[in-house]
Order: sequence, then structure tokens, then C-alpha cells
Amino acid sequence: MSGNEIVTDVVIIGAGPVGLFAVFELGLVDLKCHVIDILDRPGGQCAELYPEKPIYDIPAFPEISGQGLTDNLMKQIEPFGAEFHYSQMVTNVEKLADGSFRVTTDADETFVAKVIVVAAGGGSFQPKRPPVPEIENYEGKSVFYAVRKMEQFRDQDIVIVGGGDSALDWTLNLEPLARTLTLVHRRDQFRGHADSVNKMRSLIAEGKINFVRGQLSHLEGNDGMLSEVHLKTDGGDMAIPATRLLPFFGLTMKLGPVADWGLDLHDNALIKVDTEKFETSQPGVFAIGDINWYPGKLKLILSGFHEGALMAQAAKRIVHPDEKVVFQYTTSSTKLQKKLGVA
Amino acid sequence: MSGNEIVTDVVIIGAGPVGLFAVFELGLVDLKCHVIDILDRPGGQCAELYPEKPIYDIPAFPEISGQGLTDNLMKQIEPFGAEFHYSQMVTNVEKLADGSFRVTTDADETFVAKVIVVAAGGGSFQPKRPPVPEIENYEGKSVFYAVRKMEQFRDQDIVIVGGGDSALDWTLNLEPLARTLTLVHRRDQFRGHADSVNKMRSLIAEGKINFVRGQLSHLEGNDGMLSEVHLKTDGGDMAIPATRLLPFFGLTMKLGPVADWGLDLHDNALIKVDTEKFETSQPGVFAIGDINWYPGKLKLILSGFHEGALMAQAAKRIVHPDEKVVFQYTTSSTKLQKKLGVA
Repeated sequence: MSGNEIVTDVVIIGAGPVGLFAVFELGLVDLKCHVIDILDRPGGQCAELYPEKPIYDIPAFPEISGQGLTDNLMKQIEPFGAEFHYSQMVTNVEKLADGSFRVTTDADETFVAKVIVVAAGGGSFQPKRPPVPEIENYEGKSVFYAVRKMEQFRDQDIVIVGGGDSALDWTLNLEPLARTLTLVHRRDQFRGHADSVNKMRSLIAEGKINFVRGQLSHLEGNDGMLSEVHLKTDGGDMAIPATRLLPFFGLTMKLGPVADWGLDLHDNALIKVDTEKFETSQPGVFAIGDINWYPGKLKLILSGFHEGALMAQAAKRIVHPDEKVVFQYTTSSTKLQKKLGVA
Repeated sequence: MSGNEIVTDVVIIGAGPVGLFAVFELGLVDLKCHVIDILDRPGGQCAELYPEKPIYDIPAFPEISGQGLTDNLMKQIEPFGAEFHYSQMVTNVEKLADGSFRVTTDADETFVAKVIVVAAGGGSFQPKRPPVPEIENYEGKSVFYAVRKMEQFRDQDIVIVGGGDSALDWTLNLEPLARTLTLVHRRDQFRGHADSVNKMRSLIAEGKINFVRGQLSHLEGNDGMLSEVHLKTDGGDMAIPATRLLPFFGLTMKLGPVADWGLDLHDNALIKVDTEKFETSQPGVFAIGDINWYPGKLKLILSGFHEGALMAQAAKRIVHPDEKVVFQYTTSSTKLQKKLGVA
């Protein structure tokens, strides 16, 4: 019981659209939320995988981008002052004697809450790890799967591996900072935007970056600090002096630690819930959005919104069992409008 | 089997937001819809009861008016070319030998469809009938509960009864056309906008309309054509020569003919559905939005949207039992984007 525990009504795991709208529905019934996400900003899949790509099936939006949807939701939930904890993953959930839960993250934050809402979409977004021996020893020190702080790459010998937009974008963005930069891909064809491919080829032509057709074979270094990246190429093995490695092998969705909480699962992949409260087999733990399953389930953002609304009524009864929940409409209730700051 | 039957995949009863979004979800799975509504335009309760009033709980809209929501939905469903049949009420539903349904309205339109979707909100909007003997004999001839065509009121002796915005608005709008116009209300206080009340009082002061404090007692006339409206006032009975009567006693929501279709009801008022397909006790008949009930049900527009999405998958299997339904996303499916006219 450290003094640093954050005590709140509800911990929401996942800051995608469904987690964000849950803040709204929980706010309407006066529940305070803390939201945890593995990404460094809100939006989840929408903002991570297709920020600019239009979505056409959000009701009353003939077209909206993932980023636009996220921005609108952030504005809508503003009145409720939820607190966000980004770039961390829930690693442990413990049930306490009084029925509440202690939630711990890999950033050593601890929360105590009466209700947990799992809104983790397809699970945790995790970068795919290249099949390179002992790469885990270098992760977070000289091998990174995302660029959180550009300064960590200044004046470094950088190797970027991959053929998609992430590899290309970071090649273009880090080139001005790098001491040397080498782009490695197994083919001389790239899946990224044509414009990025053209810019990258110009940098090669100007001698500002190198390109090697090949694949990662192994790493050399000490105490997590990289010194050489070894490649397999058609011309044989090759070693490149390197102090930073950025492999972009795509993201994979893993159910992650949620799989270990003893919740009833469907097909070993999705969390089973009822359709009245969207509660899991563990009372007090709810699952909404793409991560849950019930008969008829469709993985639609819209469905996650609906699930959050029904969940909030049940959460309210858990947090305040003695209060009578009177269902009200934002259109007609002055009380709700005051909460929203519009009355 | 008259030649005037409209044959279609789905008949949607109700053009409120939930009925409109059902067109979208059914359109995505290639089902054609005809939509019937008792009102003379889309939007249902939203557009009828609070067109200008803001709604705060539609996901990703911090604020939207009922009319704005309706307009956005009409734009979103445009690609699917649903046909709308306004100002009529479904009076009869008959199951045919092949499992489809024949739907008849009080405007004598007939539809044959494999699937019926009841999205009738709180039920049929019906004007409250004043407690006046035999008023039904005059309805539609000289007694009206709404003004559909202003010309029907030109050069008439009009009596308008009521103290709300409808009574005031039509007093102001019909005054220039009327031969005489008398506003009747039981008190000399009005619930309408201050501006309308002021304008009405000016018309009285200018001698352009009359005001009588009193209540309807009975009507005189022949063959549905009114000649006199009788009132009870503090000063005794009073007769006003009148050829048109417009009583505005408010709207009431009735489940209407739906109550007689033999569907399993909850509390005699709502249609019971499952939460997988939102199908009623009658296979092929679905109910979505405020008119349905299941454990946990909240009367939220948002929930009706979700229900429509799951319903559409089940409707598809009924209309095209041999086609495999592959669930696709608008964000990634070029096929769906072509249907939406954006690819």
C-alpha cells in the first residue's frame, strides 16, 4: 500500500474512441475516471493505424478521419476531467478485500478503483520484434520500435529496417539529426507513400543516407548499447557500425496481460460479456469495444459506444450502491447540462 | 395482389434517427429499403419535438441539434436511395405464404417485403384529441390537428385552441389568410415564445384577431363541415361561427397499430427483442430504438444505431439466405466504399 496509489472510481484501460466515450457516459453518472493507454496519445487504433483515413460508418458523420473522431471525443469528454496515463501497459490487477481492484502498470503507477473497464480494442499494440538473437537486451537502450524523443537519435549512427511508411518517415525525419543513417530493407521496393519513396531515393542519390538490401542477422554491443548491426545480403554478411537500431516490422495486437486475469474468454482471444451490463466473468470488471464478445457482436466503434453507455449504469450501481440511479437525457436534464458546462 | 404493390427487401417503419441509420447499415449489405413515417418529414421525435434543442450525448458530437442530426443522417444514407413515404401510418401487416410480409398504410400504399424493421420510437405521434363529443366526425374535413396546406384555411372562419407554440405560430401564420380568426385558451397566459405572445397580443390590440378565454364544449355542423364552435367561458356558454377548428392539445405517443400485431411486449408498451439480432417474437420482424426492450435497455439514440447494425446482418441472412455475409469495414473495404460513392 504505497502512498502513491491513485484512488479513483473507475480505471479505463484503453484510450481509443470507445474508452474515451466511456469517460463521457461514466461522467454523466458522476464517476471519475483514470485512463491508461500503451500509446503516447489518445485515439487507439484509429489514431495509430489510420489517423488520416476516412471512416464512413460513424452515425451522422458521412465521413470522419480517425484523428477527427478522436479530437471530437476529447472535446466531448473535457467537462469530466478524466486523467490520462499514456505510454504504459497494465501489468497486474489484484482484487482487494473490500472488492475494489489494485491496478499496476509497467511504469510503476498504481491505481485503486472499484470498477475496471477494459476498452483495449484488439489488445495491446505491440511492435513486432524482429527474429534477431538477444535483441531484447538492447530494447529501450539502443534498439527502439518507436521514436518518442528525437534527441535520443542526434549524432548517432542509425540503422532503420523496414519498407513501409514508418521506416520511410523516420528515415526522412532523422536524416538531418543523424551522424550516419542506413536504411535496410529486404527488397528495393517500398510500400510507403510514393512521395516518401521519392524523397528517400533523393537522399540516397545525394549521398546523405545509405541503403542496403538485406536482412537483420545479429547484433553486437555491450550492456544494451549497440556497436554493430550485422546483415545478411545477397553479397554475403555485412556489418554496419551502429549506435541506434529502429526496426519497423509492423505492429501486432496482443491480448496482452489481460489474458492472464482469469476472465472467461471466447475463442481464447476475446473477453466474454453479458449484453445487459457488458460485465466480464469477474464482477466489477467490464469489457467494451473490439475486445469483448457476445452473440451477434460486431467489431464496430459504434457498438463500443453503446456498450459503454449500458456499462456506465452498472458501474454506477457498484460505486454508489445506495444511490438511486435515475436515467436522464442530456437534452432535457438541467442537472446533466450543468455537468457538461452548458447550462 | 394489386399491381400497385411496392416490392422491396425491407420496410422500415419510422424515419427518426434510428430508422435513418438502419437504411445505412442495410445499404452496406445491399438491402433496399422503403421508409414509412407518420410525420411529413424525416427526423421523428428529434425533428418534431426538439429540432433546435441541443443533444449532447451523440458520440463525437459535443453538441448537435435534432435537425442537425437528421440532416447529417440524410446525407450519410443518400448513396443507398431509400424511398420515403411520409404522412402515413402502417395500419396492417399480413404474413404471406412465402414468409414475406404485406404492409398496408392508411394512405392505401401497399408494400411487400421480406423484412420489417420497426423503428417507431415512442410509437406513433398522434395529436391529443380534445374531449369534445363527435369531434371525430369533423376530423380531416373541417377539424385539423396540423396545417398541411395553408390554402385549406384561406377565407375561412378559423378557431384555434391552445396556449403553446403551435397554437401561437398558426395564429400568426394564418391570420393574413383567414376571414376571421379566434384564439381560444383556458387562461390568459401562454407557454409559447415571448416574441410570439407579443405578436399575438398586438394582433388582438389591432382588432385583427379575437381572443376568448374558455374551453371547447361542443361543435355544430353537417357532414363533417363545421358551422359553430361552442365554448364554456366564465361568462357562460358562447358560440363562435367557424368553418375550421385547429385544436393544439399536444402530441401523444401511442404504440398504435403495432400493439395489435401479436408481438411479445414488455409491460404492454415495448416490443421484446433479443440482443443478438434485435428480432421480435415474429421472425423477420425486427424492432430497434426506443420502441424495443431487452435487459439493460436504455432509450438512447446511440443504442438504436447499434441495434440497427446488428439487425442488418440478420436481415441480410433472411433476404439472401444463400449469400455468405462477410463483415467488412468502411475504412478498408473498397467494395463498401464503392457503394458509398467514395471509391
